[in-house]
Amino acid sequence: MERNLTMMTDLYQLTMMYGYFRKGMGENRAVFDLFYRRAGEEISHAVAAGLEQAVEYLNNLHFSQEDLAYLRSLRMFDEDFLRYLRDLRFTGDINAVPEGTLVFPGEPILQVIAPLTQAQLLETTLLNIINHQTLIATKASRVVQAAAGGSVLEFGLRRAQGPDAGIYGARAAIIGGCDATSNVLTAQMFGIPVRGTHAHSWVMSFPSELEAFRAYAEIFPDGCLLLVDTYDTLKSGVPNAIEVFRELRARGYEPQGIRLDSGDMAYLSRMSRQMLDEAGFPQAKICASGDLDEEVIWDLKAQGACIDIWGVGTRLITSQNTPALGGVYKLAAEEVDGVMQPRIKISENPAKITNPGLKKLYRVYDKKDGRALADLIALADEVYDEREPLTLFDPENTWKTMTVTDYTLRPLLEPVFRGGRLVYDLPALPEIRAYAAREMSTLWEEYKRLHKPHLYKVDLSRPLWTLKRSMLGRG
Amino acid sequence: MERNLTMMTDLYQLTMMYGYFRKGMGENRAVFDLFYRRAGEEISHAVAAGLEQAVEYLNNLHFSQEDLAYLRSLRMFDEDFLRYLRDLRFTGDINAVPEGTLVFPGEPILQVIAPLTQAQLLETTLLNIINHQTLIATKASRVVQAAAGGSVLEFGLRRAQGPDAGIYGARAAIIGGCDATSNVLTAQMFGIPVRGTHAHSWVMSFPSELEAFRAYAEIFPDGCLLLVDTYDTLKSGVPNAIEVFRELRARGYEPQGIRLDSGDMAYLSRMSRQMLDEAGFPQAKICASGDLDEEVIWDLKAQGACIDIWGVGTRLITSQNTPALGGVYKLAAEEVDGVMQPRIKISENPAKITNPGLKKLYRVYDKKDGRALADLIALADEVYDEREPLTLFDPENTWKTMTVTDYTLRPLLEPVFRGGRLVYDLPALPEIRAYAAREMSTLWEEYKRLHKPHLYKVDLSRPLWTLKRSMLGRG
Repeated sequence: MERNLTMMTDLYQLTMMYGYFRKGMGENRAVFDLFYRRAGEEISHAVAAGLEQAVEYLNNLHFSQEDLAYLRSLRMFDEDFLRYLRDLRFTGDINAVPEGTLVFPGEPILQVIAPLTQAQLLETTLLNIINHQTLIATKASRVVQAAAGGSVLEFGLRRAQGPDAGIYGARAAIIGGCDATSNVLTAQMFGIPVRGTHAHSWVMSFPSELEAFRAYAEIFPDGCLLLVDTYDTLKSGVPNAIEVFRELRARGYEPQGIRLDSGDMAYLSRMSRQMLDEAGFPQAKICASGDLDEEVIWDLKAQGACIDIWGVGTRLITSQNTPALGGVYKLAAEEVDGVMQPRIKISENPAKITNPGLKKLYRVYDKKDGRALADLIALADEVYDEREPLTLFDPENTWKTMTVTDYTLRPLLEPVFRGGRLVYDLPALPEIRAYAAREMSTLWEEYKRLHKPHLYKVDLSRPLWTLKRSMLGRG
Repeated sequence: MERNLTMMTDLYQLTMMYGYFRKGMGENRAVFDLFYRRAGEEISHAVAAGLEQAVEYLNNLHFSQEDLAYLRSLRMFDEDFLRYLRDLRFTGDINAVPEGTLVFPGEPILQVIAPLTQAQLLETTLLNIINHQTLIATKASRVVQAAAGGSVLEFGLRRAQGPDAGIYGARAAIIGGCDATSNVLTAQMFGIPVRGTHAHSWVMSFPSELEAFRAYAEIFPDGCLLLVDTYDTLKSGVPNAIEVFRELRARGYEPQGIRLDSGDMAYLSRMSRQMLDEAGFPQAKICASGDLDEEVIWDLKAQGACIDIWGVGTRLITSQNTPALGGVYKLAAEEVDGVMQPRIKISENPAKITNPGLKKLYRVYDKKDGRALADLIALADEVYDEREPLTLFDPENTWKTMTVTDYTLRPLLEPVFRGGRLVYDLPALPEIRAYAAREMSTLWEEYKRLHKPHLYKVDLSRPLWTLKRSMLGRG
């Protein structure tokens, strides 16, 4: 499904490109940082995702003849510019954190170093792709965390915000730690497990629930999982399921279990567990679905719900409590007369002031236990030596310092494009998922708490801090 | 951009199809209703949208060789079934309300009458498409209503949940009443106005704000709109804009106005208005953007903000306070031994009990003023005569009745597919938008109130009510 998303941009990117083109500034190199400011009140960290689709977009960047004819019809641009657009391909550099990397507010997830016109064009599309997938991967990681070892399945396609939100949302959910999706297309595209059994309508299509279960077990004897809440969960659904499970066992198959989709999950799951155990099916799993998210899962577990598998739909695939990531794309440096000059966005709101210059992002790990201690944003030309002690300081309250000695420093941004050429090996989705899980394990529990987590430190190097301060003087 | 979304479905649709196929039930005709239960606490009505994309999906429904190879690899289905899938095309009937129609909870927006296997397959994809676009069209209609005659522009692409959410979300926003979008691709695809000027990065790319404005006005003298909050709105932005507007006027052009993107919009817009008026630019418009939605617009207007154009982004394109429409797709009737039998989904939650049978949906209008009085869901074979008085009753509290005499009865569901063939003329987007606006004008203000609106009546006919009651006896 190769799509050309070149025209999927805000008109003002094209008007600005035209402006830079006409002013002779279009070929000046510029540096833009893509980062998020915060991802919801309770969320201290995000799981980066979407790079693969961003790469596809960049690889396929071009204006078709139809696109140019449409732009001509707007009567805003001259023929020189349309010719320039006709030949436009991405020729710049991109650095980005690998998908699945834990990222924190203010850190560059992706950097674009390219001629100003090109860098400007990319803004909206890159934000769209990376905001969405990072949002859903992050939400999924919270749900998986609440499930605390239970299996989480992504079930949200029907309530996703359009096809791509379903397709790539499921991809992002896998990165965030979901075990499988119900979405057949996503499973096909990315080689990941797909799951699903039957709905209420199956049960309603037979004269009785028992006949419906029996028919299902006949066709899918292996891994049979029955939805037990169509009529009455405890009086009809579970007893009928047990009867069919006994028949299955007599044929030599062990059932997978039951699914609950309504009613009080804490009570129903405990009672169902007891009934299954007493009937001789202690291995049968209980799957729950229906309006679940990390909060509900957390509460249900606290109330002793006996649920092994969580099918999470709407609230995951839309990130219901925070349906947008506040990702932005800001100019950090620009070439003037051949010299790269740092740029800063000043705001009355200190949280909106950007970090100037071409930067590197490091994660500082404790060498003893491999846990992340803090992140450090530095200017690209700074040199660090792990044999020297490293002193970090809080950029807001500079007297708060921390000096570490036994540490390793990991640069998080990897080269993805060089001169418009892809230089990065895109990992397969299962690999990304495994990497994301390892990333989570490097973060102390206090930073991952679902509510009011401790804030992970993102510090600025002394040279970057000094540059920023000096630039805040002007405006 | 023709896409095949056939595989974009939940796996359980395929397992159920396989089950029906194997049990010899697959060719039985079934009736499914697509409807929503509620669209957020404050929302009493929704604006139907997405039918055009649903039609594209149905027209293109087929499994490719690659799809079949993938399904074979799952080792769940036999070769007979895969052959059946290979030849599968949509052969059923579809009825639906036209896009832009006002719809209320529980009403069928779309009906599928098709062989059971086909009808089952369509569920997830139809829900995905129609849930999404209806959600955003509804949200947009609320924003447009709050703007009360002010112009609303859709600006949300960068924060939309993936490309389709941006592309089709913008389409739906236009249906809901937005005047234009910033999304170039949506404008190109659907022939609607596109808007946009410049961002902060434009201003930051010049040595001074004044030079940036001057450069912009030089390139776009017509309809020049300047973003004035990069440094200081009232001390720098507006005075610089006025200076450039004077230069423009000297060249024979009138400016379009200014855009505010941060700070207190009530105060800044009033002060900016005053400065523009005093400088001789009373026609210059003030555009506001940045974290707007219907609530903020409503409050800003109440505080006397002088804003003519509202650029609404994240909160519209994600429907932030309610990011999913609770649309469902439920079995209403099924052929057994050649006879269509009604089906009902029973639930402990009365709101989740479905309306059985093949139904029609009518809107009852007052003949005098053309306003909608109530909606009526009836069985398909009922006959109504507008010359006879019509008595409606509340399905929950049946003693509450209303008899109307001078009324017209409009069937809302139109034939879209007959025997798999498209029989519906898809209107162009501007036409849909105009129709939606007319629809809104038929609804009394009390039903459209942003907060705690009066609930519009959706009644059941006596025969439907009686059928439903009789079926609730069993389980």
